[in-house]
Amino acid sequence: MRALAEYLPQIEAAIQGAPGTDHPLAGAMAYALEGGKRLRPGLLLLAADACGADWQALVPAAAAIECIHVYSLVHDDLPAMDDDDLRRGRPTVHRAYGEATAILVGDGLLTLAFDLLAGIDGVAPRAVLGAIREIASGAGIGDGMVGGQVLDLDGAQDAPGSIRVARAKTGALLGAAAAAGGQLASAAPAAVNALRSYGRALGVAFQIRDDLLDVVGTEAEIGKRLRKDADKERPNIVRFLGVEGARAAYDEHAQHARDALMRAAGDGVKTERLLALMEELADRMH
Amino acid sequence: MRALAEYLPQIEAAIQGAPGTDHPLAGAMAYALEGGKRLRPGLLLLAADACGADWQALVPAAAAIECIHVYSLVHDDLPAMDDDDLRRGRPTVHRAYGEATAILVGDGLLTLAFDLLAGIDGVAPRAVLGAIREIASGAGIGDGMVGGQVLDLDGAQDAPGSIRVARAKTGALLGAAAAAGGQLASAAPAAVNALRSYGRALGVAFQIRDDLLDVVGTEAEIGKRLRKDADKERPNIVRFLGVEGARAAYDEHAQHARDALMRAAGDGVKTERLLALMEELADRMH
Repeated sequence: MRALAEYLPQIEAAIQGAPGTDHPLAGAMAYALEGGKRLRPGLLLLAADACGADWQALVPAAAAIECIHVYSLVHDDLPAMDDDDLRRGRPTVHRAYGEATAILVGDGLLTLAFDLLAGIDGVAPRAVLGAIREIASGAGIGDGMVGGQVLDLDGAQDAPGSIRVARAKTGALLGAAAAAGGQLASAAPAAVNALRSYGRALGVAFQIRDDLLDVVGTEAEIGKRLRKDADKERPNIVRFLGVEGARAAYDEHAQHARDALMRAAGDGVKTERLLALMEELADRMH
Repeated sequence: MRALAEYLPQIEAAIQGAPGTDHPLAGAMAYALEGGKRLRPGLLLLAADACGADWQALVPAAAAIECIHVYSLVHDDLPAMDDDDLRRGRPTVHRAYGEATAILVGDGLLTLAFDLLAGIDGVAPRAVLGAIREIASGAGIGDGMVGGQVLDLDGAQDAPGSIRVARAKTGALLGAAAAAGGQLASAAPAAVNALRSYGRALGVAFQIRDDLLDVVGTEAEIGKRLRKDADKERPNIVRFLGVEGARAAYDEHAQHARDALMRAAGDGVKTERLLALMEELADRMH
């Protein structure tokens, strides 16, 4: 994403430096962390930057939210969950390192994330705690990412159900990334709330786009095997809404995201690049 | 443990109230959290109390560290790890609720722990961040609990190796519990360090005691099936050290714990009940 390009070198450096030790899990953790768009850490830094923070001090928080995203992928891929053999074109962690190691890689990444967050320097401790709460809540049970996984285990039964899964599984952590950026910038509560709404809507739109591309995209466009949802009988949003219905739902959530940015702008957030990120996703839709 | 009895009612209330919502994972999480000695949360509150803190404000932190302990049990019991069918005399979480749910219960408990920690009120934010770092580090990779699990996967090869596993798997989180209590009490760094050393030594002694009882205890004494280490060919410390060697190692670590308490007392910590907890464990040894 062009809107995030400025942050990527430092995000990569922080992620590669994060595990840092020579303990036996380091290789498998580094393998799990390789690749990916770094959307969540980029969004956190972009939101903090848009609120006027010195984003360079916040790179460990960005690495932390990527650790949480990657742990969720590692655990989701496990045989007892989605049972996937490939991720980003390579063997999944449990295929490459064994199932026990994959469980521990996930546990280790999730724990490391909070160690990184709590260790942020040069930010008011109260702001750091606010960011930790945002992220733990977005990643957690209930309406958070783990809660979304639980809903997904049962499988969505209808269109509202499939949107609910997307909101918890994808929207919650993106909302937390944007809101945590605001928290770390010590932004006003109204601005943090608007950023959270923006991130959540962006996340749902992103998931709808992913599901649409799975159905109507070409492999070259998205760089992974298509129709794996249908192959695996996964609840793809398009199954319930149809292609046109999914496009309408995408537009609706993209509009929610733009509306939230309008509110954030009213609270002094510089929203140009957050909007650009949204429109970049939209460009790839149509 | 008598030394912890004062804290148990509030710990139980906090643990039972913690998941709090009616989401689909709540039942399995509550099942996982039932029972247990509550040694880690009790130790956290005892350490904070010994440093002069108002421990009642810290009960959510105590519940948090129990969530971390219980998540580790749930994941350790999984088929890909120790493959245990029973825990505390009842079916393990994956036997009762399925493997996917057990993975998510563990993930949810670990995430919830940091939400609870970051949400502590009435304590200086910097002290809360210090406690979060203690706990994330004690629970994490490297020398922490996840690191210990990784060592344990490979199996200890000799006596020092089996002590190293105990130090990381059991000692690190008990050390973090005691140190986090000190951090939350805004104790001096030297007192926090002494409490961490005490908790670590206590944890190793506790693990040696557990391994000894597995070999020489009676079922009535410890209330679980004995010799399951030998049955499963797990690396029991006694296998490498012999019964007398293990007793000597126990005494050595118990003495480390007492020495650490002497240092803590020198820094103004009221160590009587921390010592009593240590001696209670010793009473059950001989």
